[in-house]
Amino acid sequence: MKKIVVIGGGTGNFTVLKGLKNYDVDLSAIVSMADDGGSTGILRDELGVLPPGDVRQCLVALSDSSRLMRSLMNYRFENGGLGGHSFGNLLLSALEKVTGSFEKAVEEAGKILNIKGKVIPVTTHQVRLKMILADRTLLEGEKDIYLSQDIDQGYKSIFLEPYPKANPYAINEIYNADLLVLGPGGLHTSLIPNLLVDGVVDALRSSQAKKTFVVNLMNRKGQTTSFKVSDYLKEVHRFIGEDIFDYILVNDQKPPQALIEVYAEEGDLVENDLTDDSRIILAPLLGELKGVPATDFIKRNLIRHDPKKLAQELMKIVHHL
Amino acid sequence: MKKIVVIGGGTGNFTVLKGLKNYDVDLSAIVSMADDGGSTGILRDELGVLPPGDVRQCLVALSDSSRLMRSLMNYRFENGGLGGHSFGNLLLSALEKVTGSFEKAVEEAGKILNIKGKVIPVTTHQVRLKMILADRTLLEGEKDIYLSQDIDQGYKSIFLEPYPKANPYAINEIYNADLLVLGPGGLHTSLIPNLLVDGVVDALRSSQAKKTFVVNLMNRKGQTTSFKVSDYLKEVHRFIGEDIFDYILVNDQKPPQALIEVYAEEGDLVENDLTDDSRIILAPLLGELKGVPATDFIKRNLIRHDPKKLAQELMKIVHHL
Repeated sequence: MKKIVVIGGGTGNFTVLKGLKNYDVDLSAIVSMADDGGSTGILRDELGVLPPGDVRQCLVALSDSSRLMRSLMNYRFENGGLGGHSFGNLLLSALEKVTGSFEKAVEEAGKILNIKGKVIPVTTHQVRLKMILADRTLLEGEKDIYLSQDIDQGYKSIFLEPYPKANPYAINEIYNADLLVLGPGGLHTSLIPNLLVDGVVDALRSSQAKKTFVVNLMNRKGQTTSFKVSDYLKEVHRFIGEDIFDYILVNDQKPPQALIEVYAEEGDLVENDLTDDSRIILAPLLGELKGVPATDFIKRNLIRHDPKKLAQELMKIVHHL
Repeated sequence: MKKIVVIGGGTGNFTVLKGLKNYDVDLSAIVSMADDGGSTGILRDELGVLPPGDVRQCLVALSDSSRLMRSLMNYRFENGGLGGHSFGNLLLSALEKVTGSFEKAVEEAGKILNIKGKVIPVTTHQVRLKMILADRTLLEGEKDIYLSQDIDQGYKSIFLEPYPKANPYAINEIYNADLLVLGPGGLHTSLIPNLLVDGVVDALRSSQAKKTFVVNLMNRKGQTTSFKVSDYLKEVHRFIGEDIFDYILVNDQKPPQALIEVYAEEGDLVENDLTDDSRIILAPLLGELKGVPATDFIKRNLIRHDPKKLAQELMKIVHHL
């Protein structure tokens, strides 16, 4: 059975894992530990736990349990002191307290959710993602970086503080993978934070696995404004130090014009400027549009990867290994 | 297989169920829905859910899952907006929100915890336990009643508001039981609230089951001060309307004098004044004393029933059925 290791955090990871779960492969998700917004941020601050949010999404993606259990994990309390917390985050935080270890908590939650595969925090140290902008403004925390509109003006540095050692299990997975998948996901907030962990880049460079980069569908205004496929690769390679990818998976399906206009305030479509690069795999990867009201929250998710289509393309790569 | 139905709420139920779980019997717990203190009270107020606390204790008592899962259910968050909430309460409340039904929530939590037997809320209506004292003071809520020091001065009435219909599943269990067990537990706060639900008393009177009353070890000062066994029975029979019990299980093991003194502020030992009543079963029922520091919280639990000894005596009754 081929081993696929997916690296990222948040919704991007969720989509890839959800699609691949239905194939006969050995799946692992390596998850960024930089999240500090919303429910996760409150839990970190108040309880001193490691960030559960991205891990929760991966667990749900890999879960083979009932639809009810998956809804439960994503259920958010609405009122009072619990308001905003997702139940799955509370489960992971309570398990961390009871077992004394975040890794053990993830493992136990995986059993409760009957997951197919493994979810592995990239580091088990408490870290903050920080960024120094071109004008020397210091952004402290993933949330502030996520909300900044000035990153496309350039930045001096991005780093985790304190500089953390990688989780040895994550390194092991990278070495033992047949296929590594980086992305899709927030470039500075979900993907790069994995590369900032001591040991990850070395492992990515040395691993004999084939490596696929899944390019985002949309740019985020103020963050990756007008980025093309080559810009994504350039940015990632700044951290990896060399071009490691064997495949670059790019969507070639155009969303309806009306939807692009809805999105205009938030960002533009990522254009493929590497038409001559033989590593580029073009495929229609868009999720189906459901008739949902375009609230601010949902808008962000209207143009998104389809888990099935994404998995089909990745499995074509696997079959060639 | 004999069917045993235990009626109560809180720690008393926990002890009986925990002991009986190890025998080959068909176990059900009917649980009072009057709790409104602590974590449970906050969840009722803020989320509008039914009270999870007593149900959680019964689920944990019947759980056949790992020690870790049971610790998780009883884990209390310590800080921030979550402070004081036990994880199991949050599980039940989130499940109630996701499924839209408290009964369904209890059922699903039972699956997650791999319980042996059934836990059944006595009613699925939102109710408050209220009491009018002799001096016409109105106590609103189980918590206020639990904390009152004036109940032993007599009270005019105790009632649930609004007056709720029983859960038909609870009634069914009472009719189909081979043995019914009432107690131990807080007389006005855990036992009687079950009897105040429309349909329960009729079922108790009509059921062909043998009926056992398990008498508390200790009185609670201000509540059942200096109550003897006959006082407990008299009080319960006021609500049932007739004497229904076939067996009355009473502890005859004396706790160490030092411990009785530690307890003196909170209450005195329950004395058996029914030495001629052939229904009385005397047995040593005390739990072992562990070398724990006598904090206020633990003090309450130092003189307590031993689940094993309690179950052994109840099983002797079952073997005679």
